[in-house]
Amino acid sequence: MLAVDFGGTKVEAALVVGDRIIDGTRTRRPTGPDRSAAELDAAVTEVVRGALGTATVTRVGIGTAGPVDTVRGLASPLNTPGWRDHPFRDLVATLVPGADIVLAIDGLAITLAEHRYGAGRGSDNVLGMVVSTGIGGGLVIDGRGISGANGNAGHVGHIQVSGYDDPCACGRRGCVEATASGPNSVRWAQSQGWEGSTGEELAASSDPRARAAIERSARAVGLAIASASALVDLDIVAIGGGFSRSAPDYLDLVRTAADEGFPFVRATHIVPAALGDEAPLIGAALLAG
Amino acid sequence: MLAVDFGGTKVEAALVVGDRIIDGTRTRRPTGPDRSAAELDAAVTEVVRGALGTATVTRVGIGTAGPVDTVRGLASPLNTPGWRDHPFRDLVATLVPGADIVLAIDGLAITLAEHRYGAGRGSDNVLGMVVSTGIGGGLVIDGRGISGANGNAGHVGHIQVSGYDDPCACGRRGCVEATASGPNSVRWAQSQGWEGSTGEELAASSDPRARAAIERSARAVGLAIASASALVDLDIVAIGGGFSRSAPDYLDLVRTAADEGFPFVRATHIVPAALGDEAPLIGAALLAG
Repeated sequence: MLAVDFGGTKVEAALVVGDRIIDGTRTRRPTGPDRSAAELDAAVTEVVRGALGTATVTRVGIGTAGPVDTVRGLASPLNTPGWRDHPFRDLVATLVPGADIVLAIDGLAITLAEHRYGAGRGSDNVLGMVVSTGIGGGLVIDGRGISGANGNAGHVGHIQVSGYDDPCACGRRGCVEATASGPNSVRWAQSQGWEGSTGEELAASSDPRARAAIERSARAVGLAIASASALVDLDIVAIGGGFSRSAPDYLDLVRTAADEGFPFVRATHIVPAALGDEAPLIGAALLAG
Repeated sequence: MLAVDFGGTKVEAALVVGDRIIDGTRTRRPTGPDRSAAELDAAVTEVVRGALGTATVTRVGIGTAGPVDTVRGLASPLNTPGWRDHPFRDLVATLVPGADIVLAIDGLAITLAEHRYGAGRGSDNVLGMVVSTGIGGGLVIDGRGISGANGNAGHVGHIQVSGYDDPCACGRRGCVEATASGPNSVRWAQSQGWEGSTGEELAASSDPRARAAIERSARAVGLAIASASALVDLDIVAIGGGFSRSAPDYLDLVRTAADEGFPFVRATHIVPAALGDEAPLIGAALLAG
């Protein structure tokens, strides 16, 4: 099984069997907001060829930053403007002729991995969530990975939160991603006079404005989780991503904010993701069956 | 098929075949916030007996205001405090011994009906939404009615909206129900100095403060729909309920507010529900198969 994971800063591919990445196949290239469509295509081509080597595969799973159009196999990753409605599935088809190829958002891939092998095992209603450069996610509901009309189910970062109205790259205001992602938390801390410039510095800082930015992020994430659970009645939210580890009590702060509503919403368990940085590739392989 | 629909102001039952209520079987009793558990039980007993008459049924579908616990068959309707974790399914089982009984939130019932017979026909990703005394809903995603961990999927009224922080009966602030329901819109208009007291008066009023309350409601509903569509990628939102008809352009105002985000969110079609006040009973019958 060939797994491909395309994100805002890098694209990776590997051969995957179950929850195991085959030694020596994992291949990575940078992506990023300044790359042209041709450069992004070249990066994908290189990682697919690097992962395949001389192997032959009949199935390929692609997880990509969204939005997507899974009906037509297109990707428009928010943080790589070089690709808009880009025929990602067809590109991979030219590299792996004859294979069955499934494309989905990366958040769904991660959630399938956590559901099968990680923090969501044993539950039928799981939100996998990544709090990092952006805020993404995916849904398993009633035991099944959820796609929605165009494959975009899981964009939890674009749920609004009450009490915030930060402008969001999606065009709205008050989305949890606009409020709570790493870079947006840094921006907010800077607006309060803090002088650092990265999420890592924010996490390490003893400045109360840095702490306030982390608390603000965690609160917004908790409020968004409560809205998501009101809408789809979640058992488990598995949170990963670097910024979710920006303070030892980050998840406690998230839980406090999520616990203000109905008993069924408060019953949602908020836990750390279990699989780490292999989850996107392991999950991409699950997409393909 | 016996269908039961329990809400904050009334409980109804009827015999239903497909999308047709059998003549003469529809029976109604009042419920309400002041009734005791025994009074609510009596109302249910009367409508079930009235609808059944001398008929025998093997399947019963119950739609109820939520929250619910469908694993245990319990209902805790927000607006009838007489019932908390009340064994609604078991109550009906004593009235219809031996029948297969399915209990779910009323919003899911309505959505199944709109999906099968109404405004959601032909789509696999539908949010049914009622804007009335409260704001409720249900979800069909990837062609299936969605339950979630405890049967509470569809509580769209308890998604937060940015820019509002009205206190909500669920315990949170800024939920769309707290901002945009009929009674809460009336309350907001009154806080601005408007002197009427019902949603009907608000709809009929030429006072600009009444119009502002309706615009505020529609905007909050649109923002909540956009968050819901970000999370589950909806094709169609079918909106019913009296307050959604409080102005001829209410749905246009909803659409304007919903159309600020991603293209896939803007692609969500917002339409009037098609089935009217029979939808809860027709949908309750669909719950039972």
